[in-house]
Amino acid sequence: MPTINDIADKLGISKGTVSKALNGADDVSETLRKKVLETAVEIGYERNRVRKDTANRLCIIVENIHHEDPGDFGHDIVMGFKKLAVPAGWEVDVVAITEERQKEISYDAFMLSHEYKGAFIIGMSLLDPWMEELKTARTPAVLYDNYIQENPRVGYIGVDNEEAYMMAIRHLYGLGHTQIGYLGGDMDSFVSRKRHDAFLGAMDAHGLTVKQNRIGCSYFISECTQKYLPRLLNSQVTAIVCATDLLAQAVIVSCMDMGCRVPEDVSIIGFDDAPFAAYTSPALTTIRQNQEALGRCGFYALNSLISRTYIGTLLLRAELITRASTASARRGKLTTPRKIPNSRQTPV
Amino acid sequence: MPTINDIADKLGISKGTVSKALNGADDVSETLRKKVLETAVEIGYERNRVRKDTANRLCIIVENIHHEDPGDFGHDIVMGFKKLAVPAGWEVDVVAITEERQKEISYDAFMLSHEYKGAFIIGMSLLDPWMEELKTARTPAVLYDNYIQENPRVGYIGVDNEEAYMMAIRHLYGLGHTQIGYLGGDMDSFVSRKRHDAFLGAMDAHGLTVKQNRIGCSYFISECTQKYLPRLLNSQVTAIVCATDLLAQAVIVSCMDMGCRVPEDVSIIGFDDAPFAAYTSPALTTIRQNQEALGRCGFYALNSLISRTYIGTLLLRAELITRASTASARRGKLTTPRKIPNSRQTPV
Repeated sequence: MPTINDIADKLGISKGTVSKALNGADDVSETLRKKVLETAVEIGYERNRVRKDTANRLCIIVENIHHEDPGDFGHDIVMGFKKLAVPAGWEVDVVAITEERQKEISYDAFMLSHEYKGAFIIGMSLLDPWMEELKTARTPAVLYDNYIQENPRVGYIGVDNEEAYMMAIRHLYGLGHTQIGYLGGDMDSFVSRKRHDAFLGAMDAHGLTVKQNRIGCSYFISECTQKYLPRLLNSQVTAIVCATDLLAQAVIVSCMDMGCRVPEDVSIIGFDDAPFAAYTSPALTTIRQNQEALGRCGFYALNSLISRTYIGTLLLRAELITRASTASARRGKLTTPRKIPNSRQTPV
Repeated sequence: MPTINDIADKLGISKGTVSKALNGADDVSETLRKKVLETAVEIGYERNRVRKDTANRLCIIVENIHHEDPGDFGHDIVMGFKKLAVPAGWEVDVVAITEERQKEISYDAFMLSHEYKGAFIIGMSLLDPWMEELKTARTPAVLYDNYIQENPRVGYIGVDNEEAYMMAIRHLYGLGHTQIGYLGGDMDSFVSRKRHDAFLGAMDAHGLTVKQNRIGCSYFISECTQKYLPRLLNSQVTAIVCATDLLAQAVIVSCMDMGCRVPEDVSIIGFDDAPFAAYTSPALTTIRQNQEALGRCGFYALNSLISRTYIGTLLLRAELITRASTASARRGKLTTPRKIPNSRQTPV
């Protein structure tokens, strides 16, 4: 087991300086502290005497997701996690970690410096620097909607997207829809890829063909509504599956703007069952994710990893919530949309 | 909420008789008792006053799997489940349910009659009568190595087979093997299908082609060793992936019998890391399933379902255990096996 001495030897500094650096003393420069931490991680150093006030610390790392207010996407996830963790004796910090911060310090060094025993990580994209490091990370982490292959210390929790889109497509198919399009996020996000593939799989399972001009994926909602949506509507889709409720809401409004009635001309399905989904006009048919349950499962999986039960994947069931934004494909006759611009002429 | 009265009305018998039947009184015939139970399930009756001695009962349902002795496959699964369940205040029965018993009584009626709140089910094949019923079952169940689509009350736990075979094929590929065969169980088992597909997926991911005459699947080990193994060896495979350790052990012995040296002529990989895997000759390279962890996760998932957190899938990480049954494809030169019989002449 590597000790403080090994770090000191490797860096050619005193044991006292290493100790100070590890404990965040003021008289050690940030540069040296970083060097000590990275070396500690590199040689596999673990604190053996844990200070009493940091014995049971976990962190929830958030990026790109709001969680402070009850309406925020991450709110109930964080709450669900804390609801199990705190009574079990854990202290839980919620920390926002920007891409810049990830470039400054490695994941393991960050965890070591704060004496966190494990992290629940929400909202990272595949381009985040720590995603690469998590492939070999030693400190347990559970990722919401992200998957790392073959590192048993890192688990994945989320909703079963395959099942979700099987339900969505069966629902639309049952309503007579066969000309179905898809709008989703960009391929730098694990969950966007998953949903895109799940959509294709579900269409295939129902014997429906997917035309490439009926699929649009972008990081920007505006690109989906202004560039891809007109293309979908021009290609005579009668239903559109959207990868998030936020996108679905924007699509409904854009459809209306273009003179396309929802659900008479085109049915729309979202994903998440966000708090506002019941109050869009028309109310949104969507796939419910139970955020609080996701948070609870996040804690359970992290706790399991810390006690060396290596959960790799934990998927919650999705639930189809049927509201007014989907209807029979036969109910209205598809009217040629009034003012769909050619996508090339569209300002993004 | 349906009551005892509704059952009595529906069957045209007295409330007292219904009550007696539900409580297993001796003076009610088995036929009537069964009719009462099935009717209770049909109309959605739930006991509202639970007898104190049956308030917290769960069952582990086993079929086709031994669990009594420490060397048995199911032993540590059952133990892992109980280790969490009993301290949490649950009483756990282990019950063997034959196919005949499943035909006599439905799953929900069985659970209602014994006042079990949930079941952890180990060892069922896709042909078991209850597998069909579980698609619409109301009493929570967690299945080891079996999956039911879209019934949120039934969860699936197991090991990540895709990842397991990615590791196995990468290991073999790294040793120079490209001519790889597969022997597995029959397609009436969910996990056999999963492993078969995972093998194909992993081969494809490594750019390796799979020839149909290099795959053999059967319920009977003897069919694998006597019918398929000679065909594989004749087709010049240098490595064989087996879906279980038991099969791998039989394959090693059969290879030796046929004058094929393991690992010099052919490398063998198993699955499970059963207690005997370290003591085969040569010792078996295999994929470890942590049975006790599977049991613990089984309880967690069942407990979650009972408290309405709908876990659909929970997969543990697999681990590749490298022993002596795999070696470099270049180590030995493949000798034409001495006495491989033509499969048509082989007595099964």
